[in-house]
This record gives sequence, C-alpha cells and structure tokens, in this order.
Amino acid sequence: MNRLQDAYKETPFQVNGHGPRKIQVLKEAFENLDGQLESEMYGKGKLIEDFQEKMASVLGKEAAVFFPSGTMAQQITMRIWCDEKGLKKVAYHPLCHLEVHEEDGLKELHQIESVLLADKTRVIEFEDVTGMKEEVACVLLELPQREIGGLLPDYQTLEAISAYCKEKGIMLHLDGARLFEILPYYEKNAAEICSFFDSVYISFYKGIGGIAGAVLAGDNDFIEKSKVWKRRHGGDLISLYPYYLSADYYFEKRIGKMKQYYEEAKELAGFYNQCYGVSTKPEVPVSNMFHVHFDAPKEVMELILTEICKDADVGLSSYVREVTETISYFEVSIGDLYEKLPHEKLTDAFKLLDARMRANSDKT
Amino acid sequence: MNRLQDAYKETPFQVNGHGPRKIQVLKEAFENLDGQLESEMYGKGKLIEDFQEKMASVLGKEAAVFFPSGTMAQQITMRIWCDEKGLKKVAYHPLCHLEVHEEDGLKELHQIESVLLADKTRVIEFEDVTGMKEEVACVLLELPQREIGGLLPDYQTLEAISAYCKEKGIMLHLDGARLFEILPYYEKNAAEICSFFDSVYISFYKGIGGIAGAVLAGDNDFIEKSKVWKRRHGGDLISLYPYYLSADYYFEKRIGKMKQYYEEAKELAGFYNQCYGVSTKPEVPVSNMFHVHFDAPKEVMELILTEICKDADVGLSSYVREVTETISYFEVSIGDLYEKLPHEKLTDAFKLLDARMRANSDKT
Repeated sequence: MNRLQDAYKETPFQVNGHGPRKIQVLKEAFENLDGQLESEMYGKGKLIEDFQEKMASVLGKEAAVFFPSGTMAQQITMRIWCDEKGLKKVAYHPLCHLEVHEEDGLKELHQIESVLLADKTRVIEFEDVTGMKEEVACVLLELPQREIGGLLPDYQTLEAISAYCKEKGIMLHLDGARLFEILPYYEKNAAEICSFFDSVYISFYKGIGGIAGAVLAGDNDFIEKSKVWKRRHGGDLISLYPYYLSADYYFEKRIGKMKQYYEEAKELAGFYNQCYGVSTKPEVPVSNMFHVHFDAPKEVMELILTEICKDADVGLSSYVREVTETISYFEVSIGDLYEKLPHEKLTDAFKLLDARMRANSDKT
Repeated sequence: MNRLQDAYKETPFQVNGHGPRKIQVLKEAFENLDGQLESEMYGKGKLIEDFQEKMASVLGKEAAVFFPSGTMAQQITMRIWCDEKGLKKVAYHPLCHLEVHEEDGLKELHQIESVLLADKTRVIEFEDVTGMKEEVACVLLELPQREIGGLLPDYQTLEAISAYCKEKGIMLHLDGARLFEILPYYEKNAAEICSFFDSVYISFYKGIGGIAGAVLAGDNDFIEKSKVWKRRHGGDLISLYPYYLSADYYFEKRIGKMKQYYEEAKELAGFYNQCYGVSTKPEVPVSNMFHVHFDAPKEVMELILTEICKDADVGLSSYVREVTETISYFEVSIGDLYEKLPHEKLTDAFKLLDARMRANSDKT
C-alpha cells in the first residue's frame, strides 16, 4: 500500500468507478433474493438458463453461456474457430487481453499463434484486416480498445470489416468487455453491434459493476461446443450463481446509466484537458473511459494527486503508471461515484492540479 | 424432473447430504460478515491470503492457493509435474475424475497421457505402482476412491507408495476432494496424510458443504507456478470471495463433524445391508460415503424409492443408476440431514424397502 493509494481511499470523494470492491457488493445483490431459489447444477437449472437466454436476447444471438471469466471464454472461442477452420492462427490488436494479460494461455494451452494487427497507438482499421499477409481462422476486435484509452473505429469500419471477413470465411469475434459502455457513442443497441460478429464476449464487472463473470454468445452449435471446453478448462463449476445473480442485479441497476457515464466522461476529460501539461486519450471520450497523460514523471504525479486528495477532498486516481521518465498516465472509468461529486470540489481539484502542473514545469 | 426426484424433494426427511443447494447457502455464509471487508484483486488481498495460509497450515504444506474448481487445480498440477520431469505422462485410477469427468481436458489442453492403475473394482495398491511398465511424471491417488463407493487403501500402503515414489523421483499427488471425510477412519490429521504427497487438492462442496471451489497446496515454488497456470486457464478471477469466504464459513461449521458423519454412514450402511437384495460398497464404510447396490433394475428401484418417500416420509435417494439390466445403485453421502431423521421413520423406511425387495424378487 503506498501513500497515494491510502490518500485516495481516505478522501471523501472519488472520481472513478462505482466504489470500492467490498463484499457489500455481493450482499446488496442477494439482499432481496429468496433464499429458497435453487442453485443450478453444473450449468443446468432455471436460474442460469433464464439469465443466459436473457443475455442471448440482449446480444441478438441464438444462445449464450455464462463463464467465470472472459479469459476462459475468449481462449475457448479462439480454439473453437481455429478447430473449425483447421488453422491455429488468429489476428488481434497488439494490446489485446489475450496477448498481454493471460500469461500466454492461448499459446500454452491451445497452441494458437497470434497475428498482430495495427500498432499500439491506434485501433484496427479496415486496411489492417485486408492487408493481412497470413491466413487466420478468426479476427478479434476489442470495442473499445481499452489499453489505449478506449478508442473505437468508425461504425462504417465495423461494417466493412464484418463484410470482408464474411466474404473471406474469417470468423469475427467481439471482445465486448465494455460493450454496453460504447452503445451511446454509436447510438446503436447491443444486438445491432453484435450482428457484425460471429461470437461475442461481454463482462459484468466493468461498467455493470458486478463481482466477476462473463457471457459468451453465438449460434447454438458454437455455444454447445464452448460448454465442452468450459468443462475442460475447469470452468464448469457446480454453482456459479454468486456471479450471474449479481451480474443480473447490477445489469438491471446500471444498464440504463451508460449514456450518463459517457456524458460525464466527456465532461471530465474536458476538465483534464484544460490543465497545464495534461491531456486525455482520446481527447473526447467515446465511452465511459479514457486515459489521462501527464507531462511529469510518475513520482511527481503521485505527490500531486496525494495532495489533491488531502487538500481538495477529491481522489482523481489511486495510482499512476510510467510511460517514459518524463511522462506518466492513469486510466479513468466513470461509474456511479461521479454524480455524487460536488461541482465545487471538482473545480477546486482541477484548479489545484493545474497550479501544481505549472509549478512543476517551472521547476524543471 | 422425474417422479422420484420430485418425491424426494417433497418428502419431509432426506437421508443424504446437508440439504438442497439453495442460494440460502450463500446468504447464510455472508449473513454475519462485515460488508466493508474488501475483496481481493486477482488473488491478492488479506481475505484470500489469510484463508490460503490457514489451509496451508491445516494441510501441513508451505503454501496453498484457492482455485474456482478442482478440475482446474488438478490438471494444472499434472502439467507442472510433467513439465518438471520433461515427461507428459501421469498414472491414476481408471475412474479418476480427470479420466471420466473432465471431457479429456488433460489430453486436449495439456497433451498429457494417462496410464491407468488397478481396475474399476478396487483401489490402487502398492504392486500397481511398482509394477508400472511405463515411466510417469506423477502418480495421483484419490482418497477415498469415490466412483467405487469411497474405498481406501491401508495406511501402510500409503506409506509404501509414498516412499517408493520418492525413491523413484515420481511426484505423488493427492486428490483429496473428500480428505477430511476419511481422517476419522485413518485416525490421522490432514497434515499427516498430506505428508505422503508432494501436492494436494481439497474441495469445499463435498463434506464441507460450501458453494464451490478448491485449494491446492504444496511447496512455494509449485504454488507460484500454479498461479501462472491459473491465470492461463481463466481461473484468476478478480474476485473469488463468494467461494472462499463461504468455504471458510462451512469449514468452521462442519470440520468437527466428520467423525459423526463417518459413524452415521456405518450405521446407515448396516440398515441397508439387512435388507433383502441390498448391499453396500464398501460393506463397512471408511468415510461418510458408500454406494448401495440393488438386485433389481433401475426402473423398479425408482418405483420402490418413490413409494418410500410417500409412505414412510423418508427420501433414501433422489436417483438410481443402472449397473446392468438387473442391478442398479446409488451413492450415499452423509451430512447434516442424517441426525435430523427420527429413528422410527428410518426403521419404517427400511422395513418397507426390505418388504418391497422381497416382493419384487418373488415376482421375477
């Protein structure tokens, strides 16, 4: 635990997310549920089947299945499409979750190679897909591309990539960990976006704010195969209800707030961009998230942010990451906490940030 | 849902287990927990670390890690030991969970071959291990061997197998899904049994009666490696607390009752064995579980058991499985419900079972 993290936790107002991940999140979700409801058994039972059907319908797919994690759901998706094509190669962004956060599970467990599209500064464009030199079984798009601040391709690009993949017999998969968060920008519903894709994964602990868990959706045959792989991976637990019942509770609680989070993200990015030596990526957010870059080293920013927690009562971030020796950043993700922030506190916080950034620049 | 299952659910007294798997199981575990406790994040945090240390200590190992499932924990164990030995082959019983319940995950995900020891009627003995024709990286013992009624080797056999494997450089792994349930028979504590093994998996939803989840224990190096594989498998969830906090709650509630369950299992097996055409495997249980075999087809037994539910108010089993056209069986596992059974109800139920078995035998 470092000083900034402590100060962020103790300050009265935090800017990001829905609040700390306390076990009250579970208790709240179960408070009004009847204790006599019966657990599913290894994926079979009314509670889980109802939830899966609901999600299939939301995503406009024939079927859906609940997974303990997106890591498991997406590796399995890649495996199924690769087996179907008889080709152990898939294409995705260099900052794709499978490439950077999964200890190479795709390679170690499934012997699937990755072809990297685009580069670390931008999203995958139509030309990246059509210009692929290698044949692949599947292309994975992450909407929004989280690790570069949550960027999105144009809607027309999605349409074009989807049509191209269909024509070439390449499966198209959506990493929709933050799918609901981008719908206000595209002004589309989830099923409309998902119609471009053969398979879709969504997460319940980002904007939805559940405890953990994911849903994978696609046609019946694909989903049936994914259940076999789910068992192989050790994901076919006797009871997953602590996750999907919470997921359902928070889905209902927050699905109608995605537009609000998006508008608030744009407002907050505006505040950051008015400060000296501070800029957001993207400049105008396309979802509830963005990254904030500082022309100052991580250590300096930690001191400044700690001071803002203490003097302005506002926690802007609990951490800072290094980009280079003189540039640092953090990620912002808007949830329920933002609307509780008094406007004058936020104004004070940004005045202080601007002043401290100027003072730091004078020093160096 | 069939007639027997319905009748079993509706009858006032059930013989097996701790009660139906309702979401009250979760609600009870969390009822008295402070909502302000903080979730771990991807395996890091005080709550999960405390529980893991506690389990490491109970099992007498350097370290332990919580897994969402035993399937995941055990495949990973086999992989680590195989990688260490540079040999993708392990030995276990033909009815091992990895062989019969995991859709060949070990082969499909890890390309590990299995060598089957003993046969489907008995446990693995010392000679099965010493007589292996092939070299293996690891031998897995399941105590008790569930799929044949919960049988155990002698304690001296465990000692001998352990010493032999150590001498030959073969890793020895314990599938201890029901480890706590066998301690009264061996009159040993968990750490004493585990001391024979290099790695141990235990489950929290058998005798302990939790919701799901497993612990894997071993030396520090092994456990650190297992965490990397846990992430690869998609088991490194942001929050696993719904499982391990429930596991801890029910561990404390039931760990002291294993001797009682064992004594009750012996008593109940005695009742079954007094009935015409009924026998238990083993004849005298060595844990809280055993199988009951009937000299009657599955369909006949379903009718008889349904009648016992309705006329004697006692549910002996919710299902029957076919062995041959004329022989059937079910599994019994003693938990909290048994002590709540009025003795006269049980006597009535077994009188009825005996009478119906005789009548059926006369008919055929």
